[in-house]
Amino acid sequence: MANLGFGLIGTGFMGRTHAIALRSVATVFSGIQPPRLVSVADADSDRASRAARSLGFERSTGDWTGLLDDPAVDVIDICAPNHLHYPMSLAALKAGKHVYCEKPLALGVDEAAELASVARNSGLVHAIGLNYTTNPLIQEAREIVAAGEIGDPVSFTGRYFEDYMASRDVPFTWRCDRSLAGSGALADLGSHLINMLHFLLGRPRRLTGDCRTVITARRDASTGRQRAVENEDIARAIIELETGLPATMEISRVATGYKCGLQFEIFGTGGSIAFDQERMNELRLYDAEQKPARAGYKTILAGPAHPDYGAFCPAPGHGLGINDLKVIEVRNLLRGIEHGEPFQPDFEEGLRVQQVMAAIEQSSAERAWVDLDWSVTGRRP
Amino acid sequence: MANLGFGLIGTGFMGRTHAIALRSVATVFSGIQPPRLVSVADADSDRASRAARSLGFERSTGDWTGLLDDPAVDVIDICAPNHLHYPMSLAALKAGKHVYCEKPLALGVDEAAELASVARNSGLVHAIGLNYTTNPLIQEAREIVAAGEIGDPVSFTGRYFEDYMASRDVPFTWRCDRSLAGSGALADLGSHLINMLHFLLGRPRRLTGDCRTVITARRDASTGRQRAVENEDIARAIIELETGLPATMEISRVATGYKCGLQFEIFGTGGSIAFDQERMNELRLYDAEQKPARAGYKTILAGPAHPDYGAFCPAPGHGLGINDLKVIEVRNLLRGIEHGEPFQPDFEEGLRVQQVMAAIEQSSAERAWVDLDWSVTGRRP
Amino acid sequence: MANLGFGLIGTGFMGRTHAIALRSVATVFSGIQPPRLVSVADADSDRASRAARSLGFERSTGDWTGLLDDPAVDVIDICAPNHLHYPMSLAALKAGKHVYCEKPLALGVDEAAELASVARNSGLVHAIGLNYTTNPLIQEAREIVAAGEIGDPVSFTGRYFEDYMASRDVPFTWRCDRSLAGSGALADLGSHLINMLHFLLGRPRRLTGDCRTVITARRDASTGRQRAVENEDIARAIIELETGLPATMEISRVATGYKCGLQFEIFGTGGSIAFDQERMNELRLYDAEQKPARAGYKTILAGPAHPDYGAFCPAPGHGLGINDLKVIEVRNLLRGIEHGEPFQPDFEEGLRVQQVMAAIEQSSAERAWVDLDWSVTGRRP
Amino acid sequence: MANLGFGLIGTGFMGRTHAIALRSVATVFSGIQPPRLVSVADADSDRASRAARSLGFERSTGDWTGLLDDPAVDVIDICAPNHLHYPMSLAALKAGKHVYCEKPLALGVDEAAELASVARNSGLVHAIGLNYTTNPLIQEAREIVAAGEIGDPVSFTGRYFEDYMASRDVPFTWRCDRSLAGSGALADLGSHLINMLHFLLGRPRRLTGDCRTVITARRDASTGRQRAVENEDIARAIIELETGLPATMEISRVATGYKCGLQFEIFGTGGSIAFDQERMNELRLYDAEQKPARAGYKTILAGPAHPDYGAFCPAPGHGLGINDLKVIEVRNLLRGIEHGEPFQPDFEEGLRVQQVMAAIEQSSAERAWVDLDWSVTGRRP
Repeated sequence: MANLGFGLIGTGFMGRTHAIALRSVATVFSGIQPPRLVSVADADSDRASRAARSLGFERSTGDWTGLLDDPAVDVIDICAPNHLHYPMSLAALKAGKHVYCEKPLALGVDEAAELASVARNSGLVHAIGLNYTTNPLIQEAREIVAAGEIGDPVSFTGRYFEDYMASRDVPFTWRCDRSLAGSGALADLGSHLINMLHFLLGRPRRLTGDCRTVITARRDASTGRQRAVENEDIARAIIELETGLPATMEISRVATGYKCGLQFEIFGTGGSIAFDQERMNELRLYDAEQKPARAGYKTILAGPAHPDYGAFCPAPGHGLGINDLKVIEVRNLLRGIEHGEPFQPDFEEGLRVQQVMAAIEQSSAERAWVDLDWSVTGRRP
Repeated sequence: MANLGFGLIGTGFMGRTHAIALRSVATVFSGIQPPRLVSVADADSDRASRAARSLGFERSTGDWTGLLDDPAVDVIDICAPNHLHYPMSLAALKAGKHVYCEKPLALGVDEAAELASVARNSGLVHAIGLNYTTNPLIQEAREIVAAGEIGDPVSFTGRYFEDYMASRDVPFTWRCDRSLAGSGALADLGSHLINMLHFLLGRPRRLTGDCRTVITARRDASTGRQRAVENEDIARAIIELETGLPATMEISRVATGYKCGLQFEIFGTGGSIAFDQERMNELRLYDAEQKPARAGYKTILAGPAHPDYGAFCPAPGHGLGINDLKVIEVRNLLRGIEHGEPFQPDFEEGLRVQQVMAAIEQSSAERAWVDLDWSVTGRRP
Repeated sequence: MANLGFGLIGTGFMGRTHAIALRSVATVFSGIQPPRLVSVADADSDRASRAARSLGFERSTGDWTGLLDDPAVDVIDICAPNHLHYPMSLAALKAGKHVYCEKPLALGVDEAAELASVARNSGLVHAIGLNYTTNPLIQEAREIVAAGEIGDPVSFTGRYFEDYMASRDVPFTWRCDRSLAGSGALADLGSHLINMLHFLLGRPRRLTGDCRTVITARRDASTGRQRAVENEDIARAIIELETGLPATMEISRVATGYKCGLQFEIFGTGGSIAFDQERMNELRLYDAEQKPARAGYKTILAGPAHPDYGAFCPAPGHGLGINDLKVIEVRNLLRGIEHGEPFQPDFEEGLRVQQVMAAIEQSSAERAWVDLDWSVTGRRP
Repeated sequence: MANLGFGLIGTGFMGRTHAIALRSVATVFSGIQPPRLVSVADADSDRASRAARSLGFERSTGDWTGLLDDPAVDVIDICAPNHLHYPMSLAALKAGKHVYCEKPLALGVDEAAELASVARNSGLVHAIGLNYTTNPLIQEAREIVAAGEIGDPVSFTGRYFEDYMASRDVPFTWRCDRSLAGSGALADLGSHLINMLHFLLGRPRRLTGDCRTVITARRDASTGRQRAVENEDIARAIIELETGLPATMEISRVATGYKCGLQFEIFGTGGSIAFDQERMNELRLYDAEQKPARAGYKTILAGPAHPDYGAFCPAPGHGLGINDLKVIEVRNLLRGIEHGEPFQPDFEEGLRVQQVMAAIEQSSAERAWVDLDWSVTGRRP
């Protein structure tokens, strides 16, 4: 098969991260055809041109729709702002292109459902960039849970704490604007935590939640005036999974001190596991069978015994970084397209995540438990 | 003032812990009159007699009510099983004795309210043994929050995880029996976490909660038959404090791997603090004013710069233990009685804790938010 | 047997710590006769008198030699400054009293050897207060090593870092005066680390060492003038044990940031253990037999499955404190006297520790390897 | 300037790591010309050919000397086994090529001195791959020390512990053969630690050291017979730096449990820093000016406020990996060549590292302190 051609939309940081991954994936993973970096699009054509040079794309365009007609482009890679994910993904799928879209899939459930529906019937690969689950230790954690190494799961508790909006001095940006960002902490952070829960244990049946905006107004950098923040700083949910298991989530973008505090613990009848993204090369594991005088959590360092680590480094404990997770994601995408392997997380999962986010917001507004309706997706995660 | 005489009810472990504290408190803290260990009561008078010798009490009795008439006894010290806290405390107060009762105050709100009412009007000291807040670092944490060192508080998240009931092989004991224990994880663990929240930030206005029994039946050791567990293994709550602040709680007695996982974090606009009882000599503190290249949580080791630590050890970082917290509690009690200083946590706080526990159970049963009615206590914590 | 009578010399902090332990030991440990706190001595008889009241002794004296003739005193408990350990211990042994002396045993090897010799032939119990090894987890660590759980030991690395002299503003005190303190960091800190090494793996055969005084002069508080510091701030040694094993030690009283950094690791062919006194309730254990994908250090929390912990608390992970270690030490002492069980560490060990300290100083002075001569002690640790 | 052409020797893991870095460096760092991957050499020409395809090189060769004559090759990139570093580097320099050689520079001081001498006079860039110092937090640590943020440095303690040779079952490989590997743990691990010490504090004046082979014979995989191991498993050194500062080092390849335990601490009169490569995204910093009740080590997470991190990720705490350090190293190399900026660590540093390694071995053999003779290098680090 010929090398797959990528058309990238967006020249910001995530665009650069994708380019790094595209350029190194075939060197890291043997048996992978190096992708072809065909064209990069940016509304500012000068910027697009400069990005093409610095990121290593063959050409550039000031109009992203030009990628849709480009026969050399097999994959539309969307790193544009959140509110453009929906129209761009839709157009790409309709043009018969595979889609690789950064999260969140859309601003609301309706858009996400439409995208999932179109994607489902397209025969194309539809990928969302929710890359924390590609971590070798998270893949291993899933194995551990699935294999019953911690017995029957008993409960899940997850948090995603960051502090990028904790200061009152952080101005009003598109992230505070519902029409551009959708929800707040839920979209930025919660989407990852929800995806993590689905990946490890399955999806919610019902939940009660609460959303709060702590800093209710911020200075609009363009006007200099205070402007009301339109989405939540903190979201919390008490969840019952489809399996009956209790799960709890806390999400905050005003958790002073945390930089990437995606943490979770799964307790089981035979053990437990704990993870913290700020120490992404460590997985904590407890085995309930240990005799009391020798009982303790062990801290496992990522190494070549865990999925995909060995492609980066032959020695354990040397450490992967966040960008390496994106390389694994791109490898999965390429394999999905070349070999027809199902890519996860796909647009169906993007929709499921969006549904859970919406249910938390709804529960908060109604001050009532909300049941999830999974009939719209049809398939279990 | 003459040395205060103590009459201890209960010769189990907590009785021993109290005795250790009573015997060492005046050596640890200067200016404290050593209490007089007058009498110890146990329904089994032989056991009482042996306990008197090993714990250093002057005499013993097989009938606890005998302590009520003993003129040498100033304080009734209740280390009996949970369901006896109410009748014993009530009798002690009515007999004009100060009361020092292990938590929980009672099995339900009605009993607790009656006790708080009687205590409030008695002129006596009424103390509950909820000793985690006497930790020098917790006292310091309260100072840090109160002094605005972390700015305006933004949110609280707390957990109390242990695994003493995690195994299916743990038999049915009085802890599973609602008539003897009241609630389950809430009474054992949640009471401490709720008291901690009150101590640091104040009390709830409303909440939505969920209680679950994961292991629904256990083998009754006496009958050998499976018996239905009557109270919860896991409790969770999404809380709005009276100040409007969001607080979250998770409590579990089936959290495999945890031995004393009382953890909390308070996020503020200017910083945050974090604590974990399993590392009770450490307090983590984050200051939002740090410049980015030097920003990080600091780990403060307990030392003589923190309240009460210096009485135990002149050098920082050498470490206090759980029993030392009980010595501080007893010192507070003696000071409360001798100098009329208000003792905290008192029976009012015992009632407040019971109310929150009840509200979580009610919310879980009704699947609805529940408002707290604080008119019954009259005073804020 | 009648309760053993204690005569305490020294009313400073360590005296208080001993008193706390003496008062609570029989409550903590069943089957132990409570010791009788007979008399306390201090050169200042008013202070002695006040101490007797606050510490709970029956009487006091302004002249410590009075304790030697007191028939009620069975044990002379020496908490006086370092340079008095030798004359007091000697006098006590000659008076036929058991001795319980805080470390270091003496200021030099000659004094220590004389004491060990007298003690050896006395038939009395001679105990040194080097209490870190009584930690339940250290007792367990010794079991782990002795039982071969980490295979054949391969190497030892130990550090004892504190920062109590790190600031140039710390004045010249007796600790800087060789005639009063003997060596510096070696006596204060190194003695513990050397004892720990002996306890766990055995004693040195030869070593090369280096001692340094970083802050060479300090202000004498009495004269206001700078005065030359007479002993070392930092000591280091590369050691070969009698077993041939390599051991390394670093000791510093100017290790800014550390408060009680007694740390060691033992590597073996089958695993390893690691300990840090600042987290004295945790022992880290690695088992080389773990399969790679599940390999990691486990963190064991102290609990009733470890020696002596259960006497303090029935629940694991609740934490002991530094003073609890002294209670175990006193229990060992009482058992040693009552049942003739050999007490460790005794004056022989005090001598051995002194010999290693002296060898490090000699090696540093001569810039050469030094062999240890153990013929003087006769017995292996 | 035209893109710099690279000729890579070696198709093993390190060759792949270099290729990944070469391919992504210009995408990560703006303003960098992407290097041209000209040719890859391997004695097995089929393997060379396959590597060229998978690593993205234009051509391949079965004879590395062919690269010397290739006018498209500007840089000879040496990822061949240790004993070939010397002849390849020498040939490359003599052919007028820049050299980028993996550590160690050579098998002994003589070879290293010759290489340094030739390199010094060549006008070419000569780089050694000792990449731990390119870590943003290590760069920051150097700034912290140099700026006096921890006051005057007082002492250094460093360890590099791994366990890749801890098992007796690890066979005899080239690493155990002095003619192929030179020294053992010193060359593999010690070289990094020595370079780190030089980078942060400067070089030794004298030292006393000890080297040991714990597992003295291993099974030779080719013959099936036991074969004597020819170099050390453990090396230790007590060092006095040129500044007079004490430094200590411990290096072990049989430290069961450690996977990448490059750890160091620097104590100063005003603070201290601590680092552990297994948590390479964390730097611990202590400021002696903190008031006692708020004193503690802070844990700084790597972020865009630290050198070079921002090129990989705009958000702090998300984590770099070991391969990212190689990208920074390659950027430094390209900048060194293009702008004539001095590259560190260069062959002079390679020689200095070799001298320290040799001094430790000499000291161990002679059981005596050894002085370092730096006249051979002429320049301070």
